[in-house]
Amino acid sequence: MSKTVTPLSEIGLFGLIEHIEKTFPNRRSNTLCGIKNDASITGAEGDELVTAQNLLLEGIHFDLTYYPLRHLGYKTVVAGISDVIAAGVVPTHLSLALGLSSKMSLEAVELLMEGVAMACQKYELDLTGFRPSSSLTGLTISTSAFGFAPKGKTLNRSGAKENDLICVTGDFGAAFMGLQLLEREKQVMKETGQNDPDFGGYDYLLERQLKPEARIELLTQLQEAALEPTSMSLVREGLAAALLRLCKASGTGCNIYENKVPIDHSTSTLAEEMEINPLVAALNGGEDYEMLFTLSLDDYQKIEKEGKGLKDVFVIGHITPESKGYTLETNAGEEIELKARGWGNEENKN
Amino acid sequence: MSKTVTPLSEIGLFGLIEHIEKTFPNRRSNTLCGIKNDASITGAEGDELVTAQNLLLEGIHFDLTYYPLRHLGYKTVVAGISDVIAAGVVPTHLSLALGLSSKMSLEAVELLMEGVAMACQKYELDLTGFRPSSSLTGLTISTSAFGFAPKGKTLNRSGAKENDLICVTGDFGAAFMGLQLLEREKQVMKETGQNDPDFGGYDYLLERQLKPEARIELLTQLQEAALEPTSMSLVREGLAAALLRLCKASGTGCNIYENKVPIDHSTSTLAEEMEINPLVAALNGGEDYEMLFTLSLDDYQKIEKEGKGLKDVFVIGHITPESKGYTLETNAGEEIELKARGWGNEENKN
Repeated sequence: MSKTVTPLSEIGLFGLIEHIEKTFPNRRSNTLCGIKNDASITGAEGDELVTAQNLLLEGIHFDLTYYPLRHLGYKTVVAGISDVIAAGVVPTHLSLALGLSSKMSLEAVELLMEGVAMACQKYELDLTGFRPSSSLTGLTISTSAFGFAPKGKTLNRSGAKENDLICVTGDFGAAFMGLQLLEREKQVMKETGQNDPDFGGYDYLLERQLKPEARIELLTQLQEAALEPTSMSLVREGLAAALLRLCKASGTGCNIYENKVPIDHSTSTLAEEMEINPLVAALNGGEDYEMLFTLSLDDYQKIEKEGKGLKDVFVIGHITPESKGYTLETNAGEEIELKARGWGNEENKN
Repeated sequence: MSKTVTPLSEIGLFGLIEHIEKTFPNRRSNTLCGIKNDASITGAEGDELVTAQNLLLEGIHFDLTYYPLRHLGYKTVVAGISDVIAAGVVPTHLSLALGLSSKMSLEAVELLMEGVAMACQKYELDLTGFRPSSSLTGLTISTSAFGFAPKGKTLNRSGAKENDLICVTGDFGAAFMGLQLLEREKQVMKETGQNDPDFGGYDYLLERQLKPEARIELLTQLQEAALEPTSMSLVREGLAAALLRLCKASGTGCNIYENKVPIDHSTSTLAEEMEINPLVAALNGGEDYEMLFTLSLDDYQKIEKEGKGLKDVFVIGHITPESKGYTLETNAGEEIELKARGWGNEENKN
């Protein structure tokens, strides 16, 4: 089966915008213009605007040798909206700018945008901007996500108080182990020349790396339980880094428990197979796109009493005075200092 | 004199955010959090939100061998806010995401951000987002600009009507000729090994390429004259491309006059020296960051009668029925078809 490959030069910059616009219906009544417009215009439905920008760069955030473009498009949206969700706000609009290298054909852009469209449908977003550009330096994906909130209702990482419970959604380290698996199979393929990767039952890890989901349902759960976290943050560069930043912004310390950090069984299995400490993968792996938040003890006891716990939410420790530092209690009962990774994502790469 | 060069790994990703935050005071009362927050939160001061995203990529939009970083930071802001201005709206906030290659030191980022700060001061903007990331593929600069507007007061390119006058700000082709000059001197330096470029009196062209300004004062002028353009667009990829897109969006044709297209004397001089047709440079050069808009004849006659013309604004032709096509009347009285450049900015490159 031969694939059609249309160079982007054939359709042109403005032609591409028109072509893509057709595949993005507007769902929201406050979307006031299509992506053909250079500026996106949206009805301001709320007192406060919450926006977040995100950049995905070839070679740093994804490797096109194993990253399916449709999945990449989906992840683009998830990564793009997650910081708005972490502010406690439902994202409603997304704008996209692409740097397209000459190896990207029209069909490749279509695949990428199919993934974007799937995620926009799932998360009920309107795409209000699409700006393609040439790139000499690989595929560049930049998003800007928007949502509106009532006055004073946004969350940030600076409100945690002593004795608050530290809560997280989902589990950690799976996306990191998924990446290790993909890198390993890439290496094997390079050495053997055979294109027959062996992912042996680690579908969950691959999915967490290649097609993560955004934790938008947490907002609904919190609202239904009438809970207001004292602080919230996205976990993107590792749970440890997110927790340390939250504590520093709040002027507090923290204490978490090794045996409370949620780690999927397959994460541990592959980590052990690869001689990686599963806890290190969970704390420092990155790309989890899970939420970290703090709840007052009163609020927590309230939901406990009412018997309506939050689904897929786990308490991993509590906030302490700043003077106590940032500690992890291991299964052996040892107290060790929590540390975060350094600059960027390079440490994910070999 | 030895320059200090601090690798970014020394300060770290989050350290860089904190470092940069200190140099960006918030000027506007509706800026609700600093750049330390992952999401930017702004009071929604208006019925409609106008946003625009922009991407500047190394090798496509700038060449670091001759582009001073401070100028690049300034241009980043100008390029970022110009689409909001073209919507007839004063931009108030800007968010920035950077992909930083290992050749970028802390000092280099500081220079870039000094330029951003200068432009933020000039255009009265608050920086509400700053997201650095590693890059394997050169410097990547992504902006998202915001402004708020009263209901129904935004402009776009689709409202032009037959007989409307076609107006432009400033002059055209200068940034393109500035780029040619820089490329020529780069070539000379490569061949001779001497770092002694000869820009012989073409300061204006260099400035237009390296440090363009945004046409924000046009909005004030229009407001003071109580004028509402029927359509408006930024001229970024060349005057011809901008005009054709405006006409296509409005369902009209156009007729412009060669002798009305504003071209600076130095643009013509260098173009002739380099055997480039000055008109081609003006129509297709790109990166002018000027405004193109249409005014009804009534509106135009009104300001004419009142004797208060718009400063630095020129009428270059008029809107025709769609059936008449897109035409340019040359100085020789010939009528030729207006054509735009194709995909991206590659044609700027040699």
